[in-house]
Amino acid sequence: MNYNDFDKTAAYKRLLELAPRGKGFDFASRLTGERVRKAAVPLAAGLTYSWAAKAVDDPVLEALQALADEQELVGKYRALVEGETMNTGENRKVLHHLLRGQLGKPVLHEGKNLGEFYARERDRFSAFAAAVHAGKIRGSTGKAFTTAVQIGIGGSDLGPRALYLALENWAAAEGKGRLQAKFISNVDPDDASQTAASGNLEETIFILVSKSGTTQETLANELFIKEKLIRAGLDPRKHLAAVTSETSPLARNPAYLDSFYIDDFIGGRYSSTSAVGGVILSLAFGPEVFSELLAGAHEADQNAREPKAAANAALLDALIGVWERNFLGYPYTAILPYSQALSRFPAHLQQLDMESNGKRVNRDGVPLAYSTGPVVFGEPGTNGQHSFYQLLHQGTDIVPLQFVAFTESQRGDDVEVDGSGSQTKLKANLAAQIVAFAKGKTDTNRNREFLGGRPSSLIYGKRLTPKALGALLAHFENKVMFQGFIWNINSFDQEGVQLGKVLTKKVLAARAGGSSGDSVLDAYSGILGV
Amino acid sequence: MNYNDFDKTAAYKRLLELAPRGKGFDFASRLTGERVRKAAVPLAAGLTYSWAAKAVDDPVLEALQALADEQELVGKYRALVEGETMNTGENRKVLHHLLRGQLGKPVLHEGKNLGEFYARERDRFSAFAAAVHAGKIRGSTGKAFTTAVQIGIGGSDLGPRALYLALENWAAAEGKGRLQAKFISNVDPDDASQTAASGNLEETIFILVSKSGTTQETLANELFIKEKLIRAGLDPRKHLAAVTSETSPLARNPAYLDSFYIDDFIGGRYSSTSAVGGVILSLAFGPEVFSELLAGAHEADQNAREPKAAANAALLDALIGVWERNFLGYPYTAILPYSQALSRFPAHLQQLDMESNGKRVNRDGVPLAYSTGPVVFGEPGTNGQHSFYQLLHQGTDIVPLQFVAFTESQRGDDVEVDGSGSQTKLKANLAAQIVAFAKGKTDTNRNREFLGGRPSSLIYGKRLTPKALGALLAHFENKVMFQGFIWNINSFDQEGVQLGKVLTKKVLAARAGGSSGDSVLDAYSGILGV
Repeated sequence: MNYNDFDKTAAYKRLLELAPRGKGFDFASRLTGERVRKAAVPLAAGLTYSWAAKAVDDPVLEALQALADEQELVGKYRALVEGETMNTGENRKVLHHLLRGQLGKPVLHEGKNLGEFYARERDRFSAFAAAVHAGKIRGSTGKAFTTAVQIGIGGSDLGPRALYLALENWAAAEGKGRLQAKFISNVDPDDASQTAASGNLEETIFILVSKSGTTQETLANELFIKEKLIRAGLDPRKHLAAVTSETSPLARNPAYLDSFYIDDFIGGRYSSTSAVGGVILSLAFGPEVFSELLAGAHEADQNAREPKAAANAALLDALIGVWERNFLGYPYTAILPYSQALSRFPAHLQQLDMESNGKRVNRDGVPLAYSTGPVVFGEPGTNGQHSFYQLLHQGTDIVPLQFVAFTESQRGDDVEVDGSGSQTKLKANLAAQIVAFAKGKTDTNRNREFLGGRPSSLIYGKRLTPKALGALLAHFENKVMFQGFIWNINSFDQEGVQLGKVLTKKVLAARAGGSSGDSVLDAYSGILGV
Repeated sequence: MNYNDFDKTAAYKRLLELAPRGKGFDFASRLTGERVRKAAVPLAAGLTYSWAAKAVDDPVLEALQALADEQELVGKYRALVEGETMNTGENRKVLHHLLRGQLGKPVLHEGKNLGEFYARERDRFSAFAAAVHAGKIRGSTGKAFTTAVQIGIGGSDLGPRALYLALENWAAAEGKGRLQAKFISNVDPDDASQTAASGNLEETIFILVSKSGTTQETLANELFIKEKLIRAGLDPRKHLAAVTSETSPLARNPAYLDSFYIDDFIGGRYSSTSAVGGVILSLAFGPEVFSELLAGAHEADQNAREPKAAANAALLDALIGVWERNFLGYPYTAILPYSQALSRFPAHLQQLDMESNGKRVNRDGVPLAYSTGPVVFGEPGTNGQHSFYQLLHQGTDIVPLQFVAFTESQRGDDVEVDGSGSQTKLKANLAAQIVAFAKGKTDTNRNREFLGGRPSSLIYGKRLTPKALGALLAHFENKVMFQGFIWNINSFDQEGVQLGKVLTKKVLAARAGGSSGDSVLDAYSGILGV
């Protein structure tokens, strides 16, 4: 396998030459009904990736495919799933795909079959959830659990939270809702305090999630909750379960009802399909719903093995993103789901993308001369239409867009107003926006003119089910992975979080001794009243 | 008053010359403890704006002040509050400041004193809220209201929602919580369906908010809720109140318990301090809490009249933002509150900023040659630290940062772990991040190197009270206003939302007739199953 910097490839030079085609892409003539019907790739689980409204044509697509081949993207993906050390900075394998199914030969580590390990843990937490649902595991006063609260931050929070919200209404409509889920993440004490005060602790099970078992925020929130439980006359050991690694201080600890394990090969932001997301989602909706989500993710993982971008949605999405980032010069991407259920999905993708690919050195630590991961942000439509879309339509800069939409709502509960239901209005708005962004509108009043030329993609499907959601999640994970391979960076570490941790410790230590040894830290501590 | 394009000013040329000072700003030597203690401006209501970690020095500040003077920013603000037509596109006054208090001479319009009009409406909805609290206004089965649901979108949703969440814990701690508030915004039917199913309709009052009375999403959601009420055997007239303009179809309509009015001079994204935010917040926390919020906003509005940026936090914040946008070339800004209560405040500011200043023509409709409003995004810290901060620290691009923090938590409920409480940890993390972003860290392992040079500002105060929140809200409104004046754009219209509306109507109309007349619209309608 070659690991060349992106700007050393032949495809890079070719794409630089082609850049004017994208910058001047004439959507008015190029975006036709026929293109909309043809420019689409099956993704997985009934989802389709449509790139009709992206500023690409055949020569660009050919050059992007050449880039994929030259950077051996699918080959690197194969090496990754088979256990090659792709997290070079931390010298680790990257195995979140294995949580969803086997894609290549078995992965062994120190004699252990990791696929079997992950499956065993899944079986264990499935049985745990079933026992909670059956009332075999109860709180310390004998009451059945009705609420599950996840205590975790970052990857232990954003993904599981986004997935829970994405399925809450589906589960209600399908009679799959078991426990209500809540989340405590921030070290801001108001977060834990409010959640603790908002429900009945007697009927609440807390899931403590920290791979290392040393996450400052999560441990503080655990103690916060333990004190509340004790003060309420409850036994914390009957109200807490843990998700961690086998080497963490939390492992095999009698302080918990049970503990479920992941390992160093499951990165935080890639851990939603492990016990990190699995325990809370299985408690909330049942283990069979979580299995469906995994099946959808596995299907997308399989799709991502296709060598041709024309048949590989994640690969094509990744390549077009790089086209926009490095050749058209757009420093951001907006994620705009036309689905209220996906209200926090952009926050998860923001982490997934920015934490993975916000890197300025290559996988060997050499500074790069080109841009890597963009800023990612987004809110659901139609809400965003009444908010920041103004800038997207008429601002001085172009922001590439990624839409997501479904034919049917989750709850199937709708109302007809002026001849159409709300779900129909939702979709009509999206169709209108895609065309408005791409084609614009001339006007003699320049304030009412829309230049168009705003590219967008669209992922669409019939309904946001667990399977579709799993596919959607894995699609973006794989897209980010391919972009990391293109840029020749390590998408799987996060050294950028370390300095803050070190300085925080200095600040806290200084409270006893007077000074942290850094007058600026001391000054900020002073004005903030640390 | 002159209305010159920004790039025609002498200060623009001077700032272009100074740009290298900002790009190469040496935080390692320039950011000292003394600078942290001195580089701060009182904002209002006990809040302070600290610009110590911004890439500005005296020559830059002098040039920025010259820009403020040359573009007559404070003079334009005075003209605005006294009723000059500042929304040139729609030929309207811009009067949200008048909702909070009188800053200049009375504003008359067609013989009507608008300050008195706004105050009268405030008195009316205050009395309405008090009557609900006293049980004088009840639902159709005679039960007291316990929940208030706002039905609105964009400015009728994001601001009020952010403010409600910002005060929910404060109110709980202070015994000020009256009704629980919820929000329905999206035309996605799952949004209204879930909210309707989540509470007891008998005890719920709905506040329908649409200035024009014609907002598609809001009217669909109103009918959705009315059907639910009728099906539950309730009388919708006893469960609905309206906030609208006096000329809207909703005005003086017996379908509502009562109606409260705003006018065309209160823009949606600037309407949180009108009845749009006032009714729901007064129901949730009591009218006196809303009055406190207005008092804080008024104090910030007063501060914004100072001609010197050294004493005018909103003006200085605006100028530094323009420095970063136009001279240092940063196309985005992150809003990072270290306060879980402000979890949706970035989404409000995203609308406020991007919808106001995402414009590519000047106030006379002439296309501009310079960049205007940046992309705005953000999530609360410390959550973001475990997510997208990786890119902020080690990405290939620099993202300017705006932090917000408070010495005390809202609930005062904390736990000591490893020698410090959670609120202390929260603040220690922030102090550490500011220094890490500015100063970075060298390392022989380049993957662990932090270049620093990431500028940030900090707004801090003692506690997030209604008054502090009002000041914070007004600060950002005024900042955005000043930036609009600098860029010579109209920050108060939103023509960029119109094209989508027109095309949506075409799509919906085509459902009866077969084709919209646009084959691309039809094709997207086809794949989405409109």
